[in-house]
Amino acid sequence: MTHMTPEEFRRYGREVVDWIADYYERVESLPVLSRSRPGDTRMALPAHPPETAEPFEDLMRDLDRVIVPGLTHWQHPSFFGFFPANASGPAILGDLLASGLGVQGMLWTTSPAATELETHVLDWFCELLDLPGRFASSGPGGGVIQHSASDAALVAVLAALHRVSGGATEHAGVAAGRYAVYTSGQTHSSVEKACRVAGLGSDALRKIEVDPSTQAARPQHLAALLAADRAAGITPALVVASVGATGTGAVDPVADLARLAHEHGAWLHVDAAWAGVAAVAPELRWLNDGLELADSYCTNPHKWLLTNFDCDVFYVADRAPLIGALSILPEYLRNAASDAGAVIDYRDWHVPLGRRFRALKLWAVIRWYGAEGLREHIRRSVALTQRFAGWVASDDRFEIVAPHPLALVTFRLRAGDDATRALMDAVNATGRMYLTHTTVDGAPALRMSIGATLTEERHVRAAWELLAATAG
Amino acid sequence: MTHMTPEEFRRYGREVVDWIADYYERVESLPVLSRSRPGDTRMALPAHPPETAEPFEDLMRDLDRVIVPGLTHWQHPSFFGFFPANASGPAILGDLLASGLGVQGMLWTTSPAATELETHVLDWFCELLDLPGRFASSGPGGGVIQHSASDAALVAVLAALHRVSGGATEHAGVAAGRYAVYTSGQTHSSVEKACRVAGLGSDALRKIEVDPSTQAARPQHLAALLAADRAAGITPALVVASVGATGTGAVDPVADLARLAHEHGAWLHVDAAWAGVAAVAPELRWLNDGLELADSYCTNPHKWLLTNFDCDVFYVADRAPLIGALSILPEYLRNAASDAGAVIDYRDWHVPLGRRFRALKLWAVIRWYGAEGLREHIRRSVALTQRFAGWVASDDRFEIVAPHPLALVTFRLRAGDDATRALMDAVNATGRMYLTHTTVDGAPALRMSIGATLTEERHVRAAWELLAATAG
Repeated sequence: MTHMTPEEFRRYGREVVDWIADYYERVESLPVLSRSRPGDTRMALPAHPPETAEPFEDLMRDLDRVIVPGLTHWQHPSFFGFFPANASGPAILGDLLASGLGVQGMLWTTSPAATELETHVLDWFCELLDLPGRFASSGPGGGVIQHSASDAALVAVLAALHRVSGGATEHAGVAAGRYAVYTSGQTHSSVEKACRVAGLGSDALRKIEVDPSTQAARPQHLAALLAADRAAGITPALVVASVGATGTGAVDPVADLARLAHEHGAWLHVDAAWAGVAAVAPELRWLNDGLELADSYCTNPHKWLLTNFDCDVFYVADRAPLIGALSILPEYLRNAASDAGAVIDYRDWHVPLGRRFRALKLWAVIRWYGAEGLREHIRRSVALTQRFAGWVASDDRFEIVAPHPLALVTFRLRAGDDATRALMDAVNATGRMYLTHTTVDGAPALRMSIGATLTEERHVRAAWELLAATAG
Repeated sequence: MTHMTPEEFRRYGREVVDWIADYYERVESLPVLSRSRPGDTRMALPAHPPETAEPFEDLMRDLDRVIVPGLTHWQHPSFFGFFPANASGPAILGDLLASGLGVQGMLWTTSPAATELETHVLDWFCELLDLPGRFASSGPGGGVIQHSASDAALVAVLAALHRVSGGATEHAGVAAGRYAVYTSGQTHSSVEKACRVAGLGSDALRKIEVDPSTQAARPQHLAALLAADRAAGITPALVVASVGATGTGAVDPVADLARLAHEHGAWLHVDAAWAGVAAVAPELRWLNDGLELADSYCTNPHKWLLTNFDCDVFYVADRAPLIGALSILPEYLRNAASDAGAVIDYRDWHVPLGRRFRALKLWAVIRWYGAEGLREHIRRSVALTQRFAGWVASDDRFEIVAPHPLALVTFRLRAGDDATRALMDAVNATGRMYLTHTTVDGAPALRMSIGATLTEERHVRAAWELLAATAG
């Protein structure tokens, strides 16, 4: 057996770095959506693993031969599907440092700098977004990096159950039918998944009606749902408000929902996975309205803020219920620093025990761009989106179906559902752009999500020209 | 705002690659356990985030100034704590490729190669370990990469609940007190955490007694627990068997536990997080005994098989209950390939929606080392461990407290608990090695876990000499 020597690592490392740089230089020439058919990738691979070592060069060759044709290029400047998954040079290199160091930050003592850099950078991030001070680590609250907003929703459910049950659920479990969770129909499927995972079942989830003009949750309907549950002896555990919901980017009235939640003793979690980071720009800080009443909040630098997946930042106003829900201390994890209570052990803030040093990439991004650069990235996406929306609005064949204050426009063809779907399939098939769809008021609508790291005006303009020409 | 250009990426990428190579060349000279005190790292960082962009060089400088002194060096060849967290050159570079490509494999269609390479490499891995064919993707089963064994335990609970409830729990939730989960007291705290997270509560967890001589679960006791629960109207949902438990490396009698589980309709999950990968060596395939009866199985290449965190491989004999427990399909994720049922959508195999292209690093490791190299890595760790155990056994001041067929020796000083604890603290304080402790039969025992990527005989010998000299 031969480990890769430091000298070999230098050589192959440079090759990989160059390959990635080359990839970014040519990604625009590749079809955005992969043309791969089911089984294509597997058929190009040997059926059995190699018995003996293979040269690294063979892997690099197969990268071009097998892998690249099977990719949908999320970093392509004409990727307008889903929400963006921003990569950036500093994030990639921060992540590389994390891989190279290979430390496990499960406990403070297993690498103090991994824990402290995370706490520190999450405090910085709080300041960058101008989040309420209650989320900073200096008080009873604090932040932690989660894998994804789905994981954040899950731990919010668990913390809420801990608090509302007075700590009983960890031991006794959740009595079926006893607790309820509330969110709008526009909220991400992660909330329903969290209800299932946490043993509440999807029956525990109440869908709050939305205002048809804004797609935002209606507080009056939440009030009615809460009252009905209370009357039926069901305990409201959690209300999830969305700031920038997945379908159309809807923004719920957080303060109103929070006041209602608290009247009934429930936890208020804000899922701002995509949109939250936009608050780096002061003129977009209306996105933070009501957060001073939230019990927890998450947003994903790995979507629209230049930080490679995975990096969801999750904040709580009070860390005690979160830790109460998740802390278990076997003997082999005991240590003096933790016993003294002087440190944070992040393993108690999420489901996994082991954890990668993810703060490095967020630190690298904040330092490379500075607050100024982060604001400019967001502002550029928003400006391009408004320009695109203007073109759509000025074309009578199209209609915009929801407000679009940020970087997502949902629209459809007036010619009908089939025409709308056919338009999406046709432009995606060209390989020159990629966008996805949703349902608004029961009918399909296309989602143009702008904000990939490398998207410039010419890409958005070309996308519109293609859409307009294809709409016929 | 200025993105890092491809030219800058080439330059800084090389610097980071060289920094990592340098780190591996000097890591042996650093104290294994960080000497950082609480707050040291944070005090060395600016209180506020930068307003303007900073040169990348500043980050690299702070890496040496602030971060390295605050690390416990898991890649140090004298790191013998917990279980290893193997990094390796090919894994680091495979991970770098994943960061660079920045694709999201949540659905097959969002990057077919990301899904297919994962399925393919997990089939390879099945073959490398000689796991039962039922875990291969060619039948109703298959494998997926999970974040950690804790996440694997959680989804095993969910799949088990789905099956035992006939699909009722996703909707109706888990009635408190209705279901029970069984595992030995030696099993990782992740099973208790999974019970809490899944809403069963820790009261639902039954601890199977262990045989004092092997620390393995006693089937007779499991049989009694199952019978008692059935008599009380409680439904056995899941039995978790450990192969290489965290405390002492105990190996449960999987086949016996599985037969009992199945008699009572329960799911059998095998947690082989650390030890499972050792089955790459044919002479260690007794580790697979009974797996032909297991419903699910996990092991972590990110521990002892040269693949950077995170990479837990999780297999099910039947994927239907897993997908049944976790699949939710909102409109914005619908697509032709998934609707046709022709592809795997891995988002339905775990909690998060988004997913990193983690198969690349496992592919890189298997190809770089080949089956031969992987076997040699495991064999070397085991041989070093047996040598170390021989030295301990031949010194009357020490006693070995559990079987040690793999790469973990648990031992203590005959002079008593305080002496044992003092020995650990004293050797760890030197910075020349690092080991951790557990409890066996109510008394502390030290865990010497051998298997870091760079550990050679001289490191193990030096560790023993330090222990022997310090024991006084």
